[in-house]
Amino acid sequence: MRLKVILPQLDAGGKTIAIINKEDAEELGVYPLDRIVLKKGSRCITVIVNITNKFVKRGEIVVYEEVREMLSLKNGNYLTATPRGELISKQYIKKKVLGKSLGYKEFKAISLDVMERDLNDLELASFITALTINGMSLNENVAMTKVMADMSDKLQFPGIVADKHSIGGVPGDKTSLLVVPIAAAAGLTVPKTSSRAITDPAGTADRMEVLAPVDLGREEMKKVVKKTMGCLVWGGSVELAPVDDLFIQIERPLSLDPLLIPSVISKKKVVGAMSVVIDIPEGLYAKVKTGYEFRKMSRMFMHTGKKLGIRVKCVKTSAEQPVGYALGPSLEAREALQSLINIETAPYDLIQKVTRIAGEMLKINRMGDEKTVVKIWKSGIAEKKMRQIIEAQGGDPMIMPEDIEIGKYSMPIRSVKSGIVKAMNNKILVYVAKAAGAPKDKAAGILLNKKLGSRVRKNDILFTIYAQKSHKFRLASRIAKKEKIFEMR
Amino acid sequence: MRLKVILPQLDAGGKTIAIINKEDAEELGVYPLDRIVLKKGSRCITVIVNITNKFVKRGEIVVYEEVREMLSLKNGNYLTATPRGELISKQYIKKKVLGKSLGYKEFKAISLDVMERDLNDLELASFITALTINGMSLNENVAMTKVMADMSDKLQFPGIVADKHSIGGVPGDKTSLLVVPIAAAAGLTVPKTSSRAITDPAGTADRMEVLAPVDLGREEMKKVVKKTMGCLVWGGSVELAPVDDLFIQIERPLSLDPLLIPSVISKKKVVGAMSVVIDIPEGLYAKVKTGYEFRKMSRMFMHTGKKLGIRVKCVKTSAEQPVGYALGPSLEAREALQSLINIETAPYDLIQKVTRIAGEMLKINRMGDEKTVVKIWKSGIAEKKMRQIIEAQGGDPMIMPEDIEIGKYSMPIRSVKSGIVKAMNNKILVYVAKAAGAPKDKAAGILLNKKLGSRVRKNDILFTIYAQKSHKFRLASRIAKKEKIFEMR
Repeated sequence: MRLKVILPQLDAGGKTIAIINKEDAEELGVYPLDRIVLKKGSRCITVIVNITNKFVKRGEIVVYEEVREMLSLKNGNYLTATPRGELISKQYIKKKVLGKSLGYKEFKAISLDVMERDLNDLELASFITALTINGMSLNENVAMTKVMADMSDKLQFPGIVADKHSIGGVPGDKTSLLVVPIAAAAGLTVPKTSSRAITDPAGTADRMEVLAPVDLGREEMKKVVKKTMGCLVWGGSVELAPVDDLFIQIERPLSLDPLLIPSVISKKKVVGAMSVVIDIPEGLYAKVKTGYEFRKMSRMFMHTGKKLGIRVKCVKTSAEQPVGYALGPSLEAREALQSLINIETAPYDLIQKVTRIAGEMLKINRMGDEKTVVKIWKSGIAEKKMRQIIEAQGGDPMIMPEDIEIGKYSMPIRSVKSGIVKAMNNKILVYVAKAAGAPKDKAAGILLNKKLGSRVRKNDILFTIYAQKSHKFRLASRIAKKEKIFEMR
Repeated sequence: MRLKVILPQLDAGGKTIAIINKEDAEELGVYPLDRIVLKKGSRCITVIVNITNKFVKRGEIVVYEEVREMLSLKNGNYLTATPRGELISKQYIKKKVLGKSLGYKEFKAISLDVMERDLNDLELASFITALTINGMSLNENVAMTKVMADMSDKLQFPGIVADKHSIGGVPGDKTSLLVVPIAAAAGLTVPKTSSRAITDPAGTADRMEVLAPVDLGREEMKKVVKKTMGCLVWGGSVELAPVDDLFIQIERPLSLDPLLIPSVISKKKVVGAMSVVIDIPEGLYAKVKTGYEFRKMSRMFMHTGKKLGIRVKCVKTSAEQPVGYALGPSLEAREALQSLINIETAPYDLIQKVTRIAGEMLKINRMGDEKTVVKIWKSGIAEKKMRQIIEAQGGDPMIMPEDIEIGKYSMPIRSVKSGIVKAMNNKILVYVAKAAGAPKDKAAGILLNKKLGSRVRKNDILFTIYAQKSHKFRLASRIAKKEKIFEMR
């Protein structure tokens, strides 16, 4: 069917979508979200079809920016539309829905069609849900990890390449900002990529961005690592797992995470890591709630890593309260930098976590242990390494904690009674920090005064809210006063 | 956040969608597919948000037709956007994904948000997939049936209201076109609604439309039934289960059907049926493949019906070949009308199926049995009743089979060998009939010459293809010649 192109000058979030008239759709025998092939000259692409009976006339086709670009279309151009047969990947998704296992070939077909944007949102959501409910076997995790790794260009770094990863779930976790320079100072190559915040007030990339640019390309990242043996860059701009980035666009809105293991291990494979330490926080509100779940997940990580030639060590950490005292990019970067400069000023739990994770990284590579970590940290070599990394990424190597600006609006939240802190509600803390503007407003967040086990007297400051914008400040303060965050005994 | 309205003059297939700039989205703290509340004056609605960093400037918002209409927007108007908190229905969907059961309150909350278009496509696909994998218990089927029925205005009809339903899976099934007039002639009230074809060359509504209009509104339908005690109308225009229509928009592209029982039984409840006979075709390519599956499904139908006060009888029928000889709306309407006029000309399997289904409808209401059916059929009263219904729906009551026009292009497909027909491939038959233009081209389709058990000599005509349009005719003929449809022994 020949159709005349109408360009609305809108994009479809990367998807290849076209809208046609209802009569034309019936003529083609297609329903909403079916696929049609559009051909112009020698070029042809598959698009997902939307149908209207009002805004697009018969004989017309509205295409969004992605399709316009791929076919170099102009308003009024003509193209040919034909229905596309059933995708084989759709049958594989159905197979998983029906409870059967998938292999490399099938995950590959699905992933390729995801990259081509040929599968629609419904099919992808169905796939992610089926993976969640029916689970991923060891063989499936290995197959999908290989698919993801094979679809990415490998990066090569000199030396003993080691990495760490946290599966998340603890607010205020600035561990990587200390672990990377310490491990690099100890002689490992640590090409660390990390994500921005999704549900938290800050991700590692957001924290590091306060100290130096993090959106480096592949070549820039290579240069930084070659020069300093480490880096702390945003994973998004390095494109370690392009297909995983597309799966995440489906997983995030559903709050489902069935591809955790392939997602983590494939990226480590792509940066050439020989070993990786996985931090698995355990707690009531974390992804892992029991020792049984920890052992199950940690076995899956280890075995999948082994099949990919990566030694994996999983470490169980606590998710019951934030790490350290700061929440929000600037406050956390300041706390991390201060702690790195002077271990005496570092929060106890941050020291524990950093020495544990970095210690495991050294042990697995027979390059030391927790004592080595503390020695390097105290010696000032780690701080120096961090400043080299900051400089190599384009930041100011002389930056001091007090140079980091904090939100000009602040309000202390005081205790209405005395006691000892028995529990704190991470979820509401995060909610308040985000209401205050974090992570978008880097200088916004929360500074805790009390943590679990702290003795509190009436009117003591429990925490202070910081914000850059007055309306967010008012909102955060209102929530903080209303909600119960600290539980005393 | 105040945003300036831009109207692209496009609709979003009934969804309430808006597009904002990436920076504004970060400021609001929302991600793609999150929900925001748009307020203009005293009116406010929830929309699903899409995000662009190019085509929509900061401070602008693009809204599609649905939103424009609901808020009476003009280009350049301003409205206020605020993030909307998490939907409780989203948590219920997650609950089902995690394998827990849902109750009335939860299905209700989900269904209301579906009607409001507040849940996005990913969430709905996840829900449908979770229902498929984790299954629906009897209590869940009953709860969801009640929710669907409660969300619809009930229709009231005089007399003993009886209904029938086929769960589908057999091409050429024109049974309803005979069962409805026979059952109505026997004294039952049969307010039959049916669907148009989805995967078949014709649905009951498509077949009936050859004889009379089927897109009647509720009031028109009531009048027809009051006058004739029966009708054969398209379910879509009567809006028996508006929320189910929205679920079907998700189920169809996924080829999943977890809400079959609530979907069927709730509609029967809404038309006030006291009894319903469910036709469950069993076969290798049907929804139900084994006797075990039949018994399981039929128990679920019966028990759910009972809880809603409807007597349900499930009948197992064969799905191994088309019913009768005709495929495609006009060919099927012609065959049905001819069979109704003269039972002697009716295909054997059609007679069997009609007497079985109509017989059960009479038996369950103690108004006769299969013998009564044959008597009414042979007497000519059933034909007269059908002509009354055709006239009441606005068709020509004098219509004769030979008045029904059939596609002008036709080609007989002949056998290349002799034997007895052992099996026929329904899937390819359907594919050929659809390629020929059915159901969009009413006069297109297939007329079989041979069926299972037929003796075939070399060069005998196996079937004839009919089409209205030459290019579809060529396509269908090409497929028919290439594919193996009949298997001989």
